Amino acid sequence: MTYEEDVYCYTTKATRQVKLTNLDKSGFPMRRGGRLAEVTLAYESWGELSPNADNAILIFTGLSPSAHAASSEQDPSPGWWEFMIGPDKAIDTNRFFVVCVNSLGGCYGSTGPRSINPETVEPYGADFPNLTVEDITSAGQHLMHELGVERLHAAVGSSMGGMASIAYGILFPEQIEYLISISAAAQALPLSIALRSLQREIIRSDPAWKNGRYKTGEEPFAGMVLARKLGLVSYRASDEWNSKFDRSKLPQERLTGKPFELEFEIENYLEYNAQKFIHNFDANCYLHLSRAMDWFDIAEHGGSVDAGLAKIKVRKALIIGVTTDILFPLRQQRELAESLKETGTDVDHVEIDSPNGHDAFLIDDEHFSPVVGNFLKQSCS
Amino acid sequence: MTYEEDVYCYTTKATRQVKLTNLDKSGFPMRRGGRLAEVTLAYESWGELSPNADNAILIFTGLSPSAHAASSEQDPSPGWWEFMIGPDKAIDTNRFFVVCVNSLGGCYGSTGPRSINPETVEPYGADFPNLTVEDITSAGQHLMHELGVERLHAAVGSSMGGMASIAYGILFPEQIEYLISISAAAQALPLSIALRSLQREIIRSDPAWKNGRYKTGEEPFAGMVLARKLGLVSYRASDEWNSKFDRSKLPQERLTGKPFELEFEIENYLEYNAQKFIHNFDANCYLHLSRAMDWFDIAEHGGSVDAGLAKIKVRKALIIGVTTDILFPLRQQRELAESLKETGTDVDHVEIDSPNGHDAFLIDDEHFSPVVGNFLKQSCS
Repeated sequence: MTYEEDVYCYTTKATRQVKLTNLDKSGFPMRRGGRLAEVTLAYESWGELSPNADNAILIFTGLSPSAHAASSEQDPSPGWWEFMIGPDKAIDTNRFFVVCVNSLGGCYGSTGPRSINPETVEPYGADFPNLTVEDITSAGQHLMHELGVERLHAAVGSSMGGMASIAYGILFPEQIEYLISISAAAQALPLSIALRSLQREIIRSDPAWKNGRYKTGEEPFAGMVLARKLGLVSYRASDEWNSKFDRSKLPQERLTGKPFELEFEIENYLEYNAQKFIHNFDANCYLHLSRAMDWFDIAEHGGSVDAGLAKIKVRKALIIGVTTDILFPLRQQRELAESLKETGTDVDHVEIDSPNGHDAFLIDDEHFSPVVGNFLKQSCS
Repeated sequence: MTYEEDVYCYTTKATRQVKLTNLDKSGFPMRRGGRLAEVTLAYESWGELSPNADNAILIFTGLSPSAHAASSEQDPSPGWWEFMIGPDKAIDTNRFFVVCVNSLGGCYGSTGPRSINPETVEPYGADFPNLTVEDITSAGQHLMHELGVERLHAAVGSSMGGMASIAYGILFPEQIEYLISISAAAQALPLSIALRSLQREIIRSDPAWKNGRYKTGEEPFAGMVLARKLGLVSYRASDEWNSKFDRSKLPQERLTGKPFELEFEIENYLEYNAQKFIHNFDANCYLHLSRAMDWFDIAEHGGSVDAGLAKIKVRKALIIGVTTDILFPLRQQRELAESLKETGTDVDHVEIDSPNGHDAFLIDDEHFSPVVGNFLKQSCS
């Protein structure tokens, strides 16, 4: 049995890095305290910025993907959102200047726990300041400024990126025309917090984590494997796995006879993808990005979710949810859409019936491309 | 905030132990090979066996509960199914002789990995033979024989116990009149396998597990805490936790300032119940019982689920599922009920709309008692 590859990418030949130049002397202030003396952001881009700089789309990613959202001349390898971004695709690079940013706090080229702290000339590691979704959003806004864009045509994001795109509308209401938020929420709820908190605790419980002070090559790989498997379980949906794996077992010759070894293909699929992931992702990054989602709460922006969303002034928002998502269930996108409407935003709210769970936006071209494509087409007419 | 206690019990003053006397010289044969030289089973009982021994109900438990399903004169402390079992309750002890057995392989008085192997005079530990649901069922049948019961009025079980009760009908079709299976399935499916496999891997990854050869007091507690938390997450449902915990945080004075510490009440609730659990449950037992559920597949009894269920000859079966169960989703009980009907069994199939997820049978007196009570009343009329 060959497995579908878990979808994410790394720094590629097309990834560029920009050091932010418009920070004041004290550096980049973090929402929960602390600051970064310098910030470098990794991004890739597709299409051309129009002369009046009004055709930019900024894409925020989920926890694991890099800035390599799509292929390009510089790097023809497929990106994590290859079906969505390109000439004549839903996010049409003939029309738009499309930028995908590696999240602040990440490990694919943007400043994060694995970066060198210029003040100590050591990696931040455990000393990276507390990260929030809003910090990721602010970093994205700084990046666009560096690229000559003062007003986005649209911010687009899925999962954590869907939170970041909403935060763009709240933090920079005058700098964004349209907003697309996919499989996200106004705030994390207990089941999702429990699932993510447990992933973090599994990593922290690995003795190799050493309170975040591990060395390269001596990382908490065992904890990362287990945490990533739990992540993968929460990203997909029951029926999809039923049809894909059912109760298929590994061939006899793959079994070792060790007690309680993996026997089912579903177990081996998780092992395969988790092992691949851990050598490309930093444990402290994982902890920060994961917790940022738990902390995210639009109610912090004015006292209630409604008050926070009322700050948004986009011409129109597109809110997408997926029927089989257990991590960001449908009711959360319903709440977002209703609350946006009540606070004066024009909203397209689409519920996609896809078998692929929370990860559907990475997989389900057929359902997602027309919805995103039509919304963006209408935004230009 | 005070937390609802996770529901399970231990050996109590009312727990009796019976050593099986009708095994042949080679002992108790296990379905997947190996044997137990001796088997002791722990049970509690309520009500009186009728003179012609035709009023016995045998209850099989889920993974964690003990035989203390209800209070009694010998031990008035509430049992894990207190609302269900007693005089004039749904499982009416005025009418029935009710027995709850601690599963073979468990650690509340029945022979399991923590028991002394009479042949080595050491605990079985890692050498306990591979356990299946069918072994648990066979042990239950032996127990009833010891108690003078050759034919059950009914086998009743939830979760793993719901699998065991169905297996009773398949393995001993002439020895059972009625069958109640709650929140169970004909076979484990990939998502449930993934969730349980990950719990087992978390335990096995704890260096203290030592391939099962840990000593008392040096058990893999860290792994057990994490595994139990994942179990608890899978047993409950999203909306229930939303209304109970929402985004409540621990009071400031409970925070330590350690990196990535628990902050939300939902995290602390899981910590509280997991810590309580691990000092009362053996890691090797957990591994065996958990895997037994993954292995369970009625199709092994004749080549297909239908062929297996066709062996059942009960007068009537009651199959109950819960709308919010993610571990044994509703479609699995639908399949069971339909397949039973197709293979000639009279079935009552009830879908309970409860917010309590897989654990609803432990909590939702209001919905469960009438359904079980009416079924058993009709079985006597």
